[in-house]
Amino acid sequence: MSTGPSRIKDPRLLDRVMSAEDAARFIQPGMTVAMSGFTGSGYPKAVPRALASRIEAAHAKGDDFRVRVLTGASTAPELDGALAKVNGIELRLPYQSDPILRDQINAGRIEYLDIHLSHVAQYAWFGLFGPLDVALVEVSAIREDGLLVPSSSIGNNKTWLEQAKAVVLEVNSWQPEALDGMHDVYYGTALPPDRRPIPLLHPGDRIGEPYLHCPPEKIVAIVETHAPDRSSAFSAPDAQSEQIAGHLLEFLEHEVAHGRLPPKLLPLQSGVGNITNAVLAGLGRGKFSGLSAYTEVIQDGMLDLVANGTLEIASATALSLSPDATERFVRDIDRYRQHIVLRPQEISNHPELVRRLGCIAMNGMIEADIYGNVNSTHVMGSRIQNGIGGSGDFARNGYLSCFMSTSTAKNGSISRIVPMVSHVDHTEHDVSIVVTEQGLADLRGLSPKQRARQVIARCAHPAYRPMLEEYFERACSKSFGKHTPHLLDEALSWHQRYVTHGTMRPDANNSNT
Amino acid sequence: MSTGPSRIKDPRLLDRVMSAEDAARFIQPGMTVAMSGFTGSGYPKAVPRALASRIEAAHAKGDDFRVRVLTGASTAPELDGALAKVNGIELRLPYQSDPILRDQINAGRIEYLDIHLSHVAQYAWFGLFGPLDVALVEVSAIREDGLLVPSSSIGNNKTWLEQAKAVVLEVNSWQPEALDGMHDVYYGTALPPDRRPIPLLHPGDRIGEPYLHCPPEKIVAIVETHAPDRSSAFSAPDAQSEQIAGHLLEFLEHEVAHGRLPPKLLPLQSGVGNITNAVLAGLGRGKFSGLSAYTEVIQDGMLDLVANGTLEIASATALSLSPDATERFVRDIDRYRQHIVLRPQEISNHPELVRRLGCIAMNGMIEADIYGNVNSTHVMGSRIQNGIGGSGDFARNGYLSCFMSTSTAKNGSISRIVPMVSHVDHTEHDVSIVVTEQGLADLRGLSPKQRARQVIARCAHPAYRPMLEEYFERACSKSFGKHTPHLLDEALSWHQRYVTHGTMRPDANNSNT
Repeated sequence: MSTGPSRIKDPRLLDRVMSAEDAARFIQPGMTVAMSGFTGSGYPKAVPRALASRIEAAHAKGDDFRVRVLTGASTAPELDGALAKVNGIELRLPYQSDPILRDQINAGRIEYLDIHLSHVAQYAWFGLFGPLDVALVEVSAIREDGLLVPSSSIGNNKTWLEQAKAVVLEVNSWQPEALDGMHDVYYGTALPPDRRPIPLLHPGDRIGEPYLHCPPEKIVAIVETHAPDRSSAFSAPDAQSEQIAGHLLEFLEHEVAHGRLPPKLLPLQSGVGNITNAVLAGLGRGKFSGLSAYTEVIQDGMLDLVANGTLEIASATALSLSPDATERFVRDIDRYRQHIVLRPQEISNHPELVRRLGCIAMNGMIEADIYGNVNSTHVMGSRIQNGIGGSGDFARNGYLSCFMSTSTAKNGSISRIVPMVSHVDHTEHDVSIVVTEQGLADLRGLSPKQRARQVIARCAHPAYRPMLEEYFERACSKSFGKHTPHLLDEALSWHQRYVTHGTMRPDANNSNT
Repeated sequence: MSTGPSRIKDPRLLDRVMSAEDAARFIQPGMTVAMSGFTGSGYPKAVPRALASRIEAAHAKGDDFRVRVLTGASTAPELDGALAKVNGIELRLPYQSDPILRDQINAGRIEYLDIHLSHVAQYAWFGLFGPLDVALVEVSAIREDGLLVPSSSIGNNKTWLEQAKAVVLEVNSWQPEALDGMHDVYYGTALPPDRRPIPLLHPGDRIGEPYLHCPPEKIVAIVETHAPDRSSAFSAPDAQSEQIAGHLLEFLEHEVAHGRLPPKLLPLQSGVGNITNAVLAGLGRGKFSGLSAYTEVIQDGMLDLVANGTLEIASATALSLSPDATERFVRDIDRYRQHIVLRPQEISNHPELVRRLGCIAMNGMIEADIYGNVNSTHVMGSRIQNGIGGSGDFARNGYLSCFMSTSTAKNGSISRIVPMVSHVDHTEHDVSIVVTEQGLADLRGLSPKQRARQVIARCAHPAYRPMLEEYFERACSKSFGKHTPHLLDEALSWHQRYVTHGTMRPDANNSNT
């Protein structure tokens, strides 16, 4: 299956090379399997499918066969999709974005734990997930000395390899050999009371080693693959994304002009998606230079900023590139290696480092309320979309926490600015900036009622703005307390209307009832 | 006014000694006044009252006179109460607990900013509160060299003294002279991108200096006082507090037995109140030793633990003791000084340190919902009680985050376990343990529905448990999504019922409507 010379250079391990089907036999019903993978990169590509086949066969015989699946973050159809399709997942954490898996979670058939990405490794060390039976980790090569060259993401792999009883490796020859040297795996973490300061002062600092360790005796199977990461093409930013990006860029320039941000800004964290890509594209249009990123994922937009010199250094835990960008990346990898560092996710998202570096956190949202609470995870308060991911790691401890989305969704039937969010992932205490295509609300240093006026005036869509104004005015006069005025019997009525009538617009009440 | 020799030993400053009334003249309408004070200790005691008189006189003449008041945390009637009574406060942050002030905030007459206590100093440095016109800070003495011996709390005083244009000092000779040497003021903080690791590895480490700096030319007035801190007697823990403490202590022992906590536990953070005092009392009954605390406030319970040797070291930003405990403290201060360190609140609550040390956070709450979201601030979603204080600093970054309260309030008319909290201060991602007198729910490693079953079964009061079970079951079958099942038109109906009928019990609907 591999092209070119074998990537498995440690002769001690050659006897463990086998097919994905054979490797999947190490995974038994009920096991906890800790897998690699972060934002569709560096996930195992062969064994999960072989496992899905085993599970399907077991189910056909009437046997129960489900596993608990832990990863770095989201993976791809050949992992989450394949396993969910055969009803093979009992529990999943800490993040997912697969449509089949999501449907099963929202049907109540899979237990899903939505966890801050920086917390996962320490929770495993605390023992909160129970024993890890198998680590299933993609690497890009195994060196002569047995050290593992990480793949296109690191995620929780260090912890999985250390904690699991048995290790199955996928060695993926599709991953560029030149990834070697791009990683920085920090081996200095510990459990309290033995923790020490993490010696990272700048986004580009290298504080660890380029390789992952794994005792050879723990490795039970090695599968060779040659398969691309899930990588979807990016569409060019649409007009609304450009408007949102424009508001945020204008704000950043304004903050620099007022001396509240240095000209090189502060390390950028950027969530995934078209809006943040539009922001990154805007940053590359000449007004900024010498920037840095301390983030989870390097996407196309960030790679472009490295390519054109706007971004001097980008630190992340994963590369998640489109096919085009992958090609550019591989072609110029030796240059990119000077500007990119990949780290374990507990370091890329570590609260100590996010606070020290003063990250500018830029993340998408499902909705915000007039008081600045943000829902990142639950549609209509109950249906999980993906998960909180790293947004909380950065929003809670960063210098600026910006949340962005269009002001409406589903052709205007949903307002993303609501009286009260139906689920809270980021509290009023942790949200500084809310941006929609309508405008930007700077909530820093404002009381709840001052925030409400800003959010309504600047971020709400004109179709919903009068309804929000009216709610807020009535709440200000009738609320039980007038610090954060709310009418409890109406606060979630917009969501209820959507659930019942398919739109938050009130006229639906008349037409449908 | 002062007893004994003057505490003002720097001869350069003697010309600025004046009455509180004269000092209050430095404060003009609309000014931002940054005051000392944290949990009723170390706040200025004379100038705020003189300021209140000035304000009252101005109002009598029809002039507008209000100020913006910043502190460390809560103060006392002679500050917040006196100023609120004369309608002298325009804006208040970051925490308060004064009944008169609270009523004005909830009447919508004062803008109140409820901010994580660890964020306040950095926000001032970021410029989010605008220029600080006057710092009004209590100290216990001024040394010959002009260095200031801090009072019974440090709070944000370092930042206020550095940032304010003018400084008014109150030198309070009631504060024990022997406080000298107990403080550790860290001068190593910076704005990003110049931040460095904070070199604190253990709760007792001293990383700064015992004194506060202030350029003498900035000091415009010095007022001598001899006045006690607000200090209220503690009532003995009631039966419910003892039960809550019992559940938590049993859990901690269980965690030690299972190797998830070391025998000396991890540094304790303890919120204010009778329940946490009961926990501390329980810790002192012999099963634990060699403990440490890394917390905001040292109250009676913690002092007792130091006295009996259970607690080896306690780090905080404030002492808040009853009259009895104050007497014991002063009598034995040289011994206590070996075991107590007082720090600026940005260090006592710093996320970097809370995470590194792995604090066990124990805080009260207003309510929790079945999915583990916690409301610490808003009664019925709109009426502010006190504020989030430091609970978020510790809950978000600590090792364990425990929230405690009785299962009901107001003679059973309020259930503190509800379908959905009416305000979220600590999200489902950040809450590990919920405790009531009924029992303890360990939410770590559980999905939302697993959490709901635990919270309902273990924490809810029997009078409300069937209602919660019934809500949860119906939500599981009828919710839009079944990851976090909710019925949006009922989720806040318990609170609405309380607002309308004065009780969350449903029978009230029948009797009153």
